[in-house]
Amino acid sequence: MKLHHVLESQQFTVPLLMELFDRTRVMEKIVARGGTRDWENKVMTTLFYKPSTRTRMSFESAMYRLGGKVLATEQAQEFSSEVEGEQLEDTIRIVADYCDLIVLRHHEAGGARRAAAVSGVPVFNAGDGAGGQHPTQALLDLYTIYNECKKLDGLSVALIGALDQGRTARSLAYLLGKFDRTKLYFIAPPEMQVKQDILEHLEQHNVVYELASSTDKIIENVDVVYQTRIDRARLHGSEIDLTSYNIDKTVLRRLRSNAIIMHPLPRSVEIASDVDGDPRAAYFRQTRNGLFVRMALLTMVFEKE
Amino acid sequence: MKLHHVLESQQFTVPLLMELFDRTRVMEKIVARGGTRDWENKVMTTLFYKPSTRTRMSFESAMYRLGGKVLATEQAQEFSSEVEGEQLEDTIRIVADYCDLIVLRHHEAGGARRAAAVSGVPVFNAGDGAGGQHPTQALLDLYTIYNECKKLDGLSVALIGALDQGRTARSLAYLLGKFDRTKLYFIAPPEMQVKQDILEHLEQHNVVYELASSTDKIIENVDVVYQTRIDRARLHGSEIDLTSYNIDKTVLRRLRSNAIIMHPLPRSVEIASDVDGDPRAAYFRQTRNGLFVRMALLTMVFEKE
Amino acid sequence: MKLHHVLESQQFTVPLLMELFDRTRVMEKIVARGGTRDWENKVMTTLFYKPSTRTRMSFESAMYRLGGKVLATEQAQEFSSEVEGEQLEDTIRIVADYCDLIVLRHHEAGGARRAAAVSGVPVFNAGDGAGGQHPTQALLDLYTIYNECKKLDGLSVALIGALDQGRTARSLAYLLGKFDRTKLYFIAPPEMQVKQDILEHLEQHNVVYELASSTDKIIENVDVVYQTRIDRARLHGSEIDLTSYNIDKTVLRRLRSNAIIMHPLPRSVEIASDVDGDPRAAYFRQTRNGLFVRMALLTMVFEKE
Repeated sequence: MKLHHVLESQQFTVPLLMELFDRTRVMEKIVARGGTRDWENKVMTTLFYKPSTRTRMSFESAMYRLGGKVLATEQAQEFSSEVEGEQLEDTIRIVADYCDLIVLRHHEAGGARRAAAVSGVPVFNAGDGAGGQHPTQALLDLYTIYNECKKLDGLSVALIGALDQGRTARSLAYLLGKFDRTKLYFIAPPEMQVKQDILEHLEQHNVVYELASSTDKIIENVDVVYQTRIDRARLHGSEIDLTSYNIDKTVLRRLRSNAIIMHPLPRSVEIASDVDGDPRAAYFRQTRNGLFVRMALLTMVFEKE
Repeated sequence: MKLHHVLESQQFTVPLLMELFDRTRVMEKIVARGGTRDWENKVMTTLFYKPSTRTRMSFESAMYRLGGKVLATEQAQEFSSEVEGEQLEDTIRIVADYCDLIVLRHHEAGGARRAAAVSGVPVFNAGDGAGGQHPTQALLDLYTIYNECKKLDGLSVALIGALDQGRTARSLAYLLGKFDRTKLYFIAPPEMQVKQDILEHLEQHNVVYELASSTDKIIENVDVVYQTRIDRARLHGSEIDLTSYNIDKTVLRRLRSNAIIMHPLPRSVEIASDVDGDPRAAYFRQTRNGLFVRMALLTMVFEKE
Repeated sequence: MKLHHVLESQQFTVPLLMELFDRTRVMEKIVARGGTRDWENKVMTTLFYKPSTRTRMSFESAMYRLGGKVLATEQAQEFSSEVEGEQLEDTIRIVADYCDLIVLRHHEAGGARRAAAVSGVPVFNAGDGAGGQHPTQALLDLYTIYNECKKLDGLSVALIGALDQGRTARSLAYLLGKFDRTKLYFIAPPEMQVKQDILEHLEQHNVVYELASSTDKIIENVDVVYQTRIDRARLHGSEIDLTSYNIDKTVLRRLRSNAIIMHPLPRSVEIASDVDGDPRAAYFRQTRNGLFVRMALLTMVFEKE
């Protein structure tokens, strides 16, 4: 299927997701046998306007396992500071001549779309602003659920954390809404509950959801717990007690035996480290899946050229 | 022809320039078919004492398209801050052992020459200080003129901007002076006009030039308009109106149909974005040529070893 | 012999050192003929919590000469600042999935050991804190002595500088103590003399040593002078005159004709630049050996996998 720019998770139809996940499984095998040299003449640029070393390294590792080469900067912000009125568009036009694909991390929502409009090569959005998208994270999250639960229909998923700001949880909710009989639980302190726009979207697509301020009577019934981090800076002067949202050994005992715990990482205190050894703790498998999903996306784009 | 260090544009004789440009054309074809692996055992270091991400990426992309590998730092300044009295010479001696070629960006004029004096491998000057040289920029500028105008003799070229500080415009003037019947127009506010040293050089080489403070009666008669940026910080408290130096649709109408507009980029307001679509706007082709020229230089050096 | 993590110089037995040095010699030949592609499917990460560009580049060059690929960051500190309570352990678990080996520079003593405890891939310690270890530096120092003096038994070695803080001198002393009839001279201002722990270690292993505050009657009798840098900031308000510890032409005249002068570099004023041309000045050969020793370590680890 056709794939060029990767700008937002909504652009992925269910058939395209299934093709991506089939390829992702192949990539897992390719990495296990030491990678390939098939794409050794390809050059990928990681053009980051702010550092995000984990994301950058995941993309770069994906490119290396495919045999390719990497141009990198985490200081692209320098471009803007250097010249008053410097346009992202000019930078993209120039950088596109140096490579076969641009992975862009920009600080403004819509940055990836503006880049794609002028780029001579495919653009992958690796995060564009707090209100923006980070589609490859959502794709690796969905792949992880698929790989762990062996299905994407009929799943109950609890999303926990500062859901008003959580880009990853929002994007995942959009993607899960594409599948049949999904049930979503948004669990957050009331002042950090998920925003109206996403609820409207879910209603339009007949996705069943529930809002809650506690994990009680929910967490024991879900297939997936998607935990996220709450920025402590938001709690200053607040009465909110976050410890009830943490996942620890006590919560583990309430979880189904075949449920999984996910987290986009990095984590702070919201998942206790003694949870790591439990087989249901899927968050390190999840980050590893990021490598395979990104490899799969890269091959889909390179093959179409 | 022999090529080892690339330190300043003046070192290039006309025959060497012609060899370089012949090779540059070959590189264009090599990139079009996906690059080569001929130089896969070569390692190039980009040793930058201050960030210049576009220049760095252009060199690194050139090396990748040749199949080679890249060691990179934009924080070489750290070397100097780490140790009182740390010598550039010691750093070069060490780094030369790690690679086959050093691309150096230094903050002091003469830095590249000092490096070349002790380096065990070829040194390419990627800019050394405000008063220094940036020869590969001048070479790609000249190649662009050659490629667009199909000749280098008998050309009329208008250089516009803060010419007292503009390293690129100065270097290009030197190179153009090597060709027959060149006519140069230096167009700048009087307080930013080109300095005496370059005018003396041109007189010694019998190059015809003219100084002007306006594009009137000039811009309609030239083959090449070389626009550069004027740092707004220089205008504080000044009466200078720079808008008359800008290139926009109005100026386009005055230009010859076969003239070209160049700019070393990045630009600010001095070329309006609605000029970009005009076929005479050559500045994005110009940056792309940087890739091919740098590839050609690298092969010339690697082949001689 | 078995090699997985490289955490501290003490882990190297004499037979392991000898295997390493045999391989190092082979690497020298491999580099002379342009490197190898044997390890082109391997990815090494340089995960640096603080910049150390020379060390990083030495490792990366070693990897490139073996044909491999490199993921790099000198801004890993960002990981810790991003999330309150972020654990080195989590970062290592994630990064280990992206690569085949992690070269870690951490700011806390013991960081490399903590990383190794959770890493899915080998960890090389490239320096962990002021009181920590930097084993590859100690190994390249020892290899240099072996290569220059053609033996490791019965050597007299003078270590000069701020020995209380000098990690490199301390580590080298440990390694030299493994060989027969080593005689060590610790030459430093009394307030900067080597610490008790290392002297106790040497006594336990029956290594003969002597403390001195001057090079008099010592420097003319040693095989190796290991000079180190004294941080000038430590001298504020102090009466210490360091010039007597410097090595210059006068000192050269007192040295044995077959002695060698070493320095971990970078240097400040403690070795005069007119010493560089003397054949006994081994410090640039020493840094070059770092490349070969690191290549040898990498192959030892990759072959065991």
